[in-house]
Amino acid sequence: MHPYRSHHCGQLRQSDVGAAVRLSGWVHRVRDHGGLLFIDLRDHYGLTQVVADPDSPAFSTAEKVRSEWVIRIDGKVKARTDETINEKLPTGHVEVFASDIEVLSASRELPLPVFAEPEYPEDIRLRYRFLDLRRETLHANIMKRSAIISSIRRRMVEDGFFEFQTPILTASSPEGARDFLVPSRIHPGKFYALPQAPQQFKQLTMVAGFDRYFQIAPCFRDEDARADRSPGEFYQLDVEMSFVTQDDVFNAVEPVLRGVFEEFADGKKVTQNFPRIPYAESMRKYGVDKPDLRNPIVMESVTEHFRGSGFKIFAKMIEADEKVEVWAIPAPGGGSRAFCDRMNSWAQGEGQPGLGYIFFRDGEGAGPIAKNIGPERTEAVRTQLGLKDGDAVFFVAGVPAKFASFAGAARQKAGFDLKLIDEDRFEFCWIVDFPMFEWNEEEKKIDFSHNPFSMPQGGEEVLDAVIAGTTNAEDVLAYQYDIVCNGIELSSGAIRNHLPAIMKKAFSIAGYDEAVLEEKFGGMMRALEYGAPPHGGIAPGIDRIVMLLCGEENLREVVMFPMNQQAEDLMMGAPSSVSPRQLRELHIRLNLPDEK
Amino acid sequence: MHPYRSHHCGQLRQSDVGAAVRLSGWVHRVRDHGGLLFIDLRDHYGLTQVVADPDSPAFSTAEKVRSEWVIRIDGKVKARTDETINEKLPTGHVEVFASDIEVLSASRELPLPVFAEPEYPEDIRLRYRFLDLRRETLHANIMKRSAIISSIRRRMVEDGFFEFQTPILTASSPEGARDFLVPSRIHPGKFYALPQAPQQFKQLTMVAGFDRYFQIAPCFRDEDARADRSPGEFYQLDVEMSFVTQDDVFNAVEPVLRGVFEEFADGKKVTQNFPRIPYAESMRKYGVDKPDLRNPIVMESVTEHFRGSGFKIFAKMIEADEKVEVWAIPAPGGGSRAFCDRMNSWAQGEGQPGLGYIFFRDGEGAGPIAKNIGPERTEAVRTQLGLKDGDAVFFVAGVPAKFASFAGAARQKAGFDLKLIDEDRFEFCWIVDFPMFEWNEEEKKIDFSHNPFSMPQGGEEVLDAVIAGTTNAEDVLAYQYDIVCNGIELSSGAIRNHLPAIMKKAFSIAGYDEAVLEEKFGGMMRALEYGAPPHGGIAPGIDRIVMLLCGEENLREVVMFPMNQQAEDLMMGAPSSVSPRQLRELHIRLNLPDEK
Repeated sequence: MHPYRSHHCGQLRQSDVGAAVRLSGWVHRVRDHGGLLFIDLRDHYGLTQVVADPDSPAFSTAEKVRSEWVIRIDGKVKARTDETINEKLPTGHVEVFASDIEVLSASRELPLPVFAEPEYPEDIRLRYRFLDLRRETLHANIMKRSAIISSIRRRMVEDGFFEFQTPILTASSPEGARDFLVPSRIHPGKFYALPQAPQQFKQLTMVAGFDRYFQIAPCFRDEDARADRSPGEFYQLDVEMSFVTQDDVFNAVEPVLRGVFEEFADGKKVTQNFPRIPYAESMRKYGVDKPDLRNPIVMESVTEHFRGSGFKIFAKMIEADEKVEVWAIPAPGGGSRAFCDRMNSWAQGEGQPGLGYIFFRDGEGAGPIAKNIGPERTEAVRTQLGLKDGDAVFFVAGVPAKFASFAGAARQKAGFDLKLIDEDRFEFCWIVDFPMFEWNEEEKKIDFSHNPFSMPQGGEEVLDAVIAGTTNAEDVLAYQYDIVCNGIELSSGAIRNHLPAIMKKAFSIAGYDEAVLEEKFGGMMRALEYGAPPHGGIAPGIDRIVMLLCGEENLREVVMFPMNQQAEDLMMGAPSSVSPRQLRELHIRLNLPDEK
Repeated sequence: MHPYRSHHCGQLRQSDVGAAVRLSGWVHRVRDHGGLLFIDLRDHYGLTQVVADPDSPAFSTAEKVRSEWVIRIDGKVKARTDETINEKLPTGHVEVFASDIEVLSASRELPLPVFAEPEYPEDIRLRYRFLDLRRETLHANIMKRSAIISSIRRRMVEDGFFEFQTPILTASSPEGARDFLVPSRIHPGKFYALPQAPQQFKQLTMVAGFDRYFQIAPCFRDEDARADRSPGEFYQLDVEMSFVTQDDVFNAVEPVLRGVFEEFADGKKVTQNFPRIPYAESMRKYGVDKPDLRNPIVMESVTEHFRGSGFKIFAKMIEADEKVEVWAIPAPGGGSRAFCDRMNSWAQGEGQPGLGYIFFRDGEGAGPIAKNIGPERTEAVRTQLGLKDGDAVFFVAGVPAKFASFAGAARQKAGFDLKLIDEDRFEFCWIVDFPMFEWNEEEKKIDFSHNPFSMPQGGEEVLDAVIAGTTNAEDVLAYQYDIVCNGIELSSGAIRNHLPAIMKKAFSIAGYDEAVLEEKFGGMMRALEYGAPPHGGIAPGIDRIVMLLCGEENLREVVMFPMNQQAEDLMMGAPSSVSPRQLRELHIRLNLPDEK
């Protein structure tokens, strides 16, 4: 017999009754029931109940073992009596009567329990991560993460993509976030950088003639921690394709995401055809470029109903500035003064002067605004929005670019509070047609909105028109898109600008001269000069996908060995001091802040 | 129709004749045949011949295009005439008559050609890696690498393993090689290290209760470059299993390696059952612990035939030191004075005094040694080794530990020069039973032979015997093993020492006190104190596997974006200078060597 196990701890069934078996695992808990000792023996695969009776030679060892000791037991499988069957456990129809127990490894007293799932301080959990990971929920999350990534890989390969590894020790690239740097021993004074994303390498892979690239790619950003982003490293499903349009990217990625979500959503519904929503429309309807489409509330402009109305605040704003609009946030089922007042208080808590509203009852609109604008306009608003008795509507007024994000938050709050949001769904959408340029208020100049390397819609011609002054830079759209799920942006992507001539014009419109382009992106630009195919891609965040599918809001619950919020690995003791010899070899000295 | 392609360039067949198609790709080459222009259009998938005749509206563009321009062509598929069919090309039965050609992206003059495969200086190839990668052989190698890794993953998952990502920003760990360090911005004066291997994390994964781990893991060592090891990063198939013996590891890994090699060996034979050769036996038979088993030569001790013989040099050595042995390297088919002299000269070139030999002809041994020891002893040697006329045998004498590696090299040279090595095979073996400890001549003390974390065979008892002085430390074997293919070590592995008590004794035998253990491996040791399962693993090198299967001897040929031998990425310009602000943020200053 194998020295450790004939079966694993999730394997024994009724049909094994009578068999002599050997199991190994952790002592999950021990109970003493009238002299009999019951040991729940746990391994990766499950839990089996082991019984030691006082007549067994195993009894004296069974008396000794404690939680989380690792033991090997030999014994015979017996059927449980009807009243002791545990239907919740796959092995719950049997138990193993131990004839021999060997302690493979004892445990010191535990700093945190594994049995049951109490809340424990984060620093203890992270310092003893190897214990925390034994807990059922965390173990299941990590296994789900592994299965999700494995499924993504399988789907990408089946879809004709090839995985390539791109360098991790690479050049510093000015992609926005702060780089982690690695001093070079061989080249004094020079540094490698860890990639913020393999963006340039995946584009170079296309220029090199590989057609459909993907990588479950580690990425590194030296940014302060957020709950949904590790301080340090994270993974993305990095994708790039050649000779494609935006639709081709969508058609390649959408079935993979839909398939993965359907596979791991535990029965929750997943969008079948991801709607494609232009950026401008998303801002108008939802107040954000990452709308939560589980929320049925759609905002509309009701400016005309307030123009010249008796609600003077809005009417004057509309008169004073043609950019001013009034948006309505319909709130089906929110038609009570109590709810409307709660929303108003919430808005004040958000730093707003308040949130105007009308609520509908007894066939008419109620509240101060309804009174001010009168029954006809109130009815016109009701009709436009399709509201009825028992519903409400909230209003925000001003320049949309300034209030949109607050309006979006109000929409989301109303959706949650009125339980309009079906939490048993994963609602996806593509946001498309992002503007290429935007007004940079701080620097008082036109700048890139997002990615300077996206292809402008209309290509070189439209940029020529901007340069000639016949088109407004802010009206230029890019082949740039986001994939959004339940209000969370999983990734941006773009059809890239593969033509140096267009790139130079785009940079000149944004006020950068060629020297900047050369200095920051010289390697990439050079590559585009030797026959680059049209190409594009995307890079959905793996950690976010896993968090959504595990229903977790903290990365720590879906990453095997995470750092804490201070970017420390408490278990391994990283970061740590290094020796003077190491510093000398790397041609650096410490430059510590003054101690005060 | 799709703006770029209806088919890819490897797709069209006889059955497509008559179809109107659209293709996009790179101009591989252009030929002018009597006024007709022939363009070989290349993409990731293949090559299609495009024809532009002077009457076609596409002709003027066709005249303009140059090598490596990216173009889109529309045209009609026509059958080639019998005499122009190219059977070597999957698309070789057809050609596409272009009606329209669009230049998607032009190319500057090429610094190295893509068509044909000339030798080019490494720095040009690496600086323009995106061009070099378009070459047929390199493109094929990179694709093969991707397919190999994908196959390994599939096989591991089918074998019940789960892939987990372990941290890349982690603690410095004293595993032998030099760490790459990453200064921490948040913790002044402290550094992360990039993992030399996820050794501790995979063991912690086992302690955390996950049963079968694997990872295609990036590893980092700041070592000087070798042809078969990148300066910087490399990948290994990192594997760890719980509740296993050495046999379990072999039984899990052997089918994966055999399967992958059979899948990608292009018909070369692969060992069906990997022999398990004890370390001591491997040293005796092959002179190395990574024998090339394609070489049929097996060495034997012939000490007794030289003891007291007329070949005084050897006889005196044997008499003077009981550790001295004489090893024979039989060389079937090497029985000519010319060959033996060549081997002798080679040995002198290797810094040896020479290489004694006997060669057999006309039913007797020839050469100085045969003369000195006389016909009887010569015949005894011949009989022991099973040699015949036309064969030779070479001799090395001394303390085996000192000459073994030279003897092994002589065996391999004879094998190659006599064409005894079948290069159309992949011959695998496991080397087992490595010694746990060895005499460290430099420090005049017993030290660990390899991995201090391997479990000694015999466990705690055998270490107690060493400490009690009843067993020799050098006689303790470890559950440590290597996997070897064609003389190349793919990996070491071990059943780990999971018991702190045994670990402390092993370290004390090697002369390290507990403070050293705590300082260097405190995190790991602490984890073992909370219920660690018996576990073990291995980590075959991915790059070496791919090199073997691609028949390449330089890593550059199997890695997409390698660094050069000076650890530079010439394409992206890494490593590079960074700004004073970046250095300040990381709390470091440069400490440059004096300029002289």
